[in-house]
Amino acid sequence: MPKFKYLSKINSPADLRELRVEELPAVCEELRADIIEEVSHNPGHLASSLGVVELTVALHYVFSTPYDRIVWDVGHQAYGHKILTGRRDKFYTNRKLNGICPFPTPTESEYDTFTCGHASNSISAALGMAVAALKKGEVDRHVVAVIGDGSMSGGLAFEGLNNTSDTPNNMLIVLNDNNMSIDSSVGGMKQYLLHLHTSSKYNSLRFRLSRLLYKWGWLNEDRRRAAIRFNNALKSLIANQQNIFEGMNIRYFGPMDGHNIIELVRTLQRIKDMGGPKLLHIHTTKGKGLAPAEDDPTVWHAPGKFDPDSGERVVQNKANQPPKFQDVFGETLVELAQQNEKIIGVTPAMPTGCSMNILMKALPRRAYDVGIAEGHAMTFSAGMAKEGMIPFCNIYSAFSQRAYDNIIHDAAILNLPVVLCLDRAGIVGADGPTHHGVFDMAALRPVPNLTIASPYDEQELRRLMYTAQLPGKGTFVIRYPRGSGRLTDWRCPLEEVPVGKGRKIKDGADLAIVSIGPLGNTAADAIAEVEKETDKTIALYDLRFLKPLDEELLTEVGRRFSHIITIEDGTRAGGMGSAILEFMDDHDLPARIHRLGLPDEFVEHGSVDELYRIVGLDKDSIVREIKRRL
Amino acid sequence: MPKFKYLSKINSPADLRELRVEELPAVCEELRADIIEEVSHNPGHLASSLGVVELTVALHYVFSTPYDRIVWDVGHQAYGHKILTGRRDKFYTNRKLNGICPFPTPTESEYDTFTCGHASNSISAALGMAVAALKKGEVDRHVVAVIGDGSMSGGLAFEGLNNTSDTPNNMLIVLNDNNMSIDSSVGGMKQYLLHLHTSSKYNSLRFRLSRLLYKWGWLNEDRRRAAIRFNNALKSLIANQQNIFEGMNIRYFGPMDGHNIIELVRTLQRIKDMGGPKLLHIHTTKGKGLAPAEDDPTVWHAPGKFDPDSGERVVQNKANQPPKFQDVFGETLVELAQQNEKIIGVTPAMPTGCSMNILMKALPRRAYDVGIAEGHAMTFSAGMAKEGMIPFCNIYSAFSQRAYDNIIHDAAILNLPVVLCLDRAGIVGADGPTHHGVFDMAALRPVPNLTIASPYDEQELRRLMYTAQLPGKGTFVIRYPRGSGRLTDWRCPLEEVPVGKGRKIKDGADLAIVSIGPLGNTAADAIAEVEKETDKTIALYDLRFLKPLDEELLTEVGRRFSHIITIEDGTRAGGMGSAILEFMDDHDLPARIHRLGLPDEFVEHGSVDELYRIVGLDKDSIVREIKRRL
Repeated sequence: MPKFKYLSKINSPADLRELRVEELPAVCEELRADIIEEVSHNPGHLASSLGVVELTVALHYVFSTPYDRIVWDVGHQAYGHKILTGRRDKFYTNRKLNGICPFPTPTESEYDTFTCGHASNSISAALGMAVAALKKGEVDRHVVAVIGDGSMSGGLAFEGLNNTSDTPNNMLIVLNDNNMSIDSSVGGMKQYLLHLHTSSKYNSLRFRLSRLLYKWGWLNEDRRRAAIRFNNALKSLIANQQNIFEGMNIRYFGPMDGHNIIELVRTLQRIKDMGGPKLLHIHTTKGKGLAPAEDDPTVWHAPGKFDPDSGERVVQNKANQPPKFQDVFGETLVELAQQNEKIIGVTPAMPTGCSMNILMKALPRRAYDVGIAEGHAMTFSAGMAKEGMIPFCNIYSAFSQRAYDNIIHDAAILNLPVVLCLDRAGIVGADGPTHHGVFDMAALRPVPNLTIASPYDEQELRRLMYTAQLPGKGTFVIRYPRGSGRLTDWRCPLEEVPVGKGRKIKDGADLAIVSIGPLGNTAADAIAEVEKETDKTIALYDLRFLKPLDEELLTEVGRRFSHIITIEDGTRAGGMGSAILEFMDDHDLPARIHRLGLPDEFVEHGSVDELYRIVGLDKDSIVREIKRRL
Repeated sequence: MPKFKYLSKINSPADLRELRVEELPAVCEELRADIIEEVSHNPGHLASSLGVVELTVALHYVFSTPYDRIVWDVGHQAYGHKILTGRRDKFYTNRKLNGICPFPTPTESEYDTFTCGHASNSISAALGMAVAALKKGEVDRHVVAVIGDGSMSGGLAFEGLNNTSDTPNNMLIVLNDNNMSIDSSVGGMKQYLLHLHTSSKYNSLRFRLSRLLYKWGWLNEDRRRAAIRFNNALKSLIANQQNIFEGMNIRYFGPMDGHNIIELVRTLQRIKDMGGPKLLHIHTTKGKGLAPAEDDPTVWHAPGKFDPDSGERVVQNKANQPPKFQDVFGETLVELAQQNEKIIGVTPAMPTGCSMNILMKALPRRAYDVGIAEGHAMTFSAGMAKEGMIPFCNIYSAFSQRAYDNIIHDAAILNLPVVLCLDRAGIVGADGPTHHGVFDMAALRPVPNLTIASPYDEQELRRLMYTAQLPGKGTFVIRYPRGSGRLTDWRCPLEEVPVGKGRKIKDGADLAIVSIGPLGNTAADAIAEVEKETDKTIALYDLRFLKPLDEELLTEVGRRFSHIITIEDGTRAGGMGSAILEFMDDHDLPARIHRLGLPDEFVEHGSVDELYRIVGLDKDSIVREIKRRL
């Protein structure tokens, strides 16, 4: 007797579709139990997937996947989807090197329709698919975008929505409203959606009328035009509510309980073949079915290991362990904000992830969570800076790609004093290619006025943060990685670092290494190993500032050494090594440069250590490179 | 007797505020006449500024600028603002080298509050300013964002709006609704705004009530909370309409006629001191007051020279002149689309500017204007590409900074066959630092999977476009400049170019130049001049592909020449020259590289020729560089 009566027989959604509707609650129960058990010992994202168990089952039950396309907005929530689409046996490898990818990806499964690591892209991508289906004459192909209310705060989602009504298509948008991003959702749209809740009478009447019209065949002649007529007619009948979605000519259904699998299936069956764009608004509970996750979905977004029965998290003892860079950022920001009343914290929906919640707790009026809206985070910060404030805007490096223009156009041109903290720079590990923060240095280096720095350790992070908020520093970027550094004694005095000045970590005679960021520590380890084995000595320089370059330091290095190894956790193309090459070339310094950094390919998922080994940035690889160049 | 009775006496808005309201229509008349006359002989943006003459006068009349902050969303419209704020005498230098900046900028005037070259940033920036004002205790400082309905389609504007209600502030948003971007506005929001028109009864009642409440002092105790109470109370009184702005707790006023200066002033006076965020929706006519501009505001967005009396445009005779790259793009796209039914055109609000209107006219169902929404343009294209279509997504290089993440996350990771055409790459001239397309090469080069090319001339543009749409090419970027090339005979056969292969334009023995894009023609001219004057010969290579690099070509160059000059119209940092440096270093080729490109500073406005001279990319500068290296 298998543990899961239904799941054990579901090898693909086709098997699911053989079941009777009445059996689906049991499937949901099993799926939820399976997700909890798997994630309890192989850590990953939990609460999001628990919230959409019923939706996942309903979508694969009602729609003919993979012919019909389901576009998940952010793959956090797609564990149930993976389990139902033939990956149950391999699910224990989720997020592990060479295992199942952290987020759905078409390279892994035909059921995965698009890249879904960054929020808010589902409507635009699904609209493209829906338009393409019509262009190709595939009028029977359904396209469904599943987007959370948190993702709806991203401008891209609005751009997609704004274009949905203008283009003939039959897309269905499922708005999964759980009032959460990773932290709580924010913003006017959340208020707006909340208010929609009160209009259920109107919606239920409209829904019944729409069924009638459909039954009578009215929606069949020319579905698109009929849909508009229908909406308009109905509005004049019961004009007690105008809904933004309807105002945009997107038919709105809901809100309804997203955990009632039977009703969800029936609703989807009724609306799936209606022509024109439509939106189904469902309410769900993030973490549904696991009491502690329902109570604190932020912590249980990615809870680490836990006991699947008791729901107790396995919290590692952190005494005397170095803190995460995130916590050093958060604690230091509070210290600085207490000293300098111009300082304001800004985060796009990552208060817990980047530890700005420490400031929010200590000085609640001094920090803003602007929702998933990286562009706004930067421009809002620039607006404050223009009026004399000093915003610390913290964005994950990979997500800051969303703010690239805002950094250039809204901050750098006027050199406004925004301190842009790029968290999770470099290799992030299990979240994979969409989340590695590896393009920031190459992309930002050509932008005039920017100061760009990366700390060697936690103390340097504190000193750089202190320096960045001093008067006259302009737009100041500080990038640092995810996770822990090496120092337990990190709470050093807050002292100014000279801008554009690196430092010599150790001297040497035979070769120089120039590094930026905490990878310098790995370089130091590698040097120690080589010096133990040989009679050579190797100098180590921490460049500290990618921009402006330390010309004195680089001139010294370029004159003294014939070979220089550069080390960075960003792309080899255009990064720090490239900047040093440019400098040596511009100044006729003949040293040979050997650039270690990320290759010209997207780096997959795995542990940070595994990935560093693969890309040649671990200690052993650096040792080999040093020996090769000696 | 001065030509303009009022304008001649208005040296700053303080002078304007001395006038009686009844005199303002005459001021508007003069301002409009002045703008028309100035722009008729010194070409610039016209129709937008004509549309906001009354709004401009009203804002400076009612608000205490510069203490109060007006944030213009896109500076096209700010000519009246410039004339009223002390720049009337210098206005004839508008857009000229060392003259008045094309868009308002704080470096020029204290009345210019923010950078406003890229659409949709005003709400976020103004919100930052409004929040900062409250933080600093400047409760009397008003902040006004002026945003067009076209800019409202940008996701950043929505992100700003979404955050407006969440943060205590007293910002006023003026929504200038003229149903236009540069071309017509598109999208659901436009529909939505149109519909708001019908609700004037409700609005007028609400407005009168709000005045009463204000008069009674109800809005004074705690303005923010009162505003919400007021809205809610009113909704239950007259709940026949729910407005998205109100739903987001932003008080909505309007719509009203934006050309009625008296009413506009009265309305602004009434609402300016109401607490909390508010939005005034006005209707205006783009090009107002100049009949041909009202009739065809797209052409008259930036009409070139014209007769201010007859309104006749001075159209230059283009017979036997080389066409613009834009037209070569547009014509070629039609040819390709006729041959390959998978091809779809996508433009974010620039159908006329990028000449995609040629495709729209020839094959209307094969092209999409998605509005000002660069991110969506790219992700929508990627969605179509995922389903087998081949979208040609055309974005101005500077605006593509808005789509940086979409290029990486939504196209490059899956290497989807989107042909991203970056129009206006390089120096654009009079539009200045916000519009130069100089970061694209450095920013995109590190992104894996991308193919990046730039044509030497119009024929090459055609061949690259043909090549890009062939099967298996993946994400393919083609960058080309604004304006005309050199060939009149451009309509060559459509032939495949080998990807990653450059070409030798001419051979030589003493020095090599490697260039990318049409600047290679300038290099050829420079070489001809040097070869005439000396006995040296200089080789010229057109690299054509920034990525992948032509390793064979570069190896040849690196082996044969000891000095190589690289020429590109992008940043020296991280660009093509840097890529060649990296290649030479990686392959132990000792050639010295001399990189010509844009310096590490924002390039100001001026003519393209003037700016190339300043940055050292004109023929004479290249001649000097060649002689220095020979």
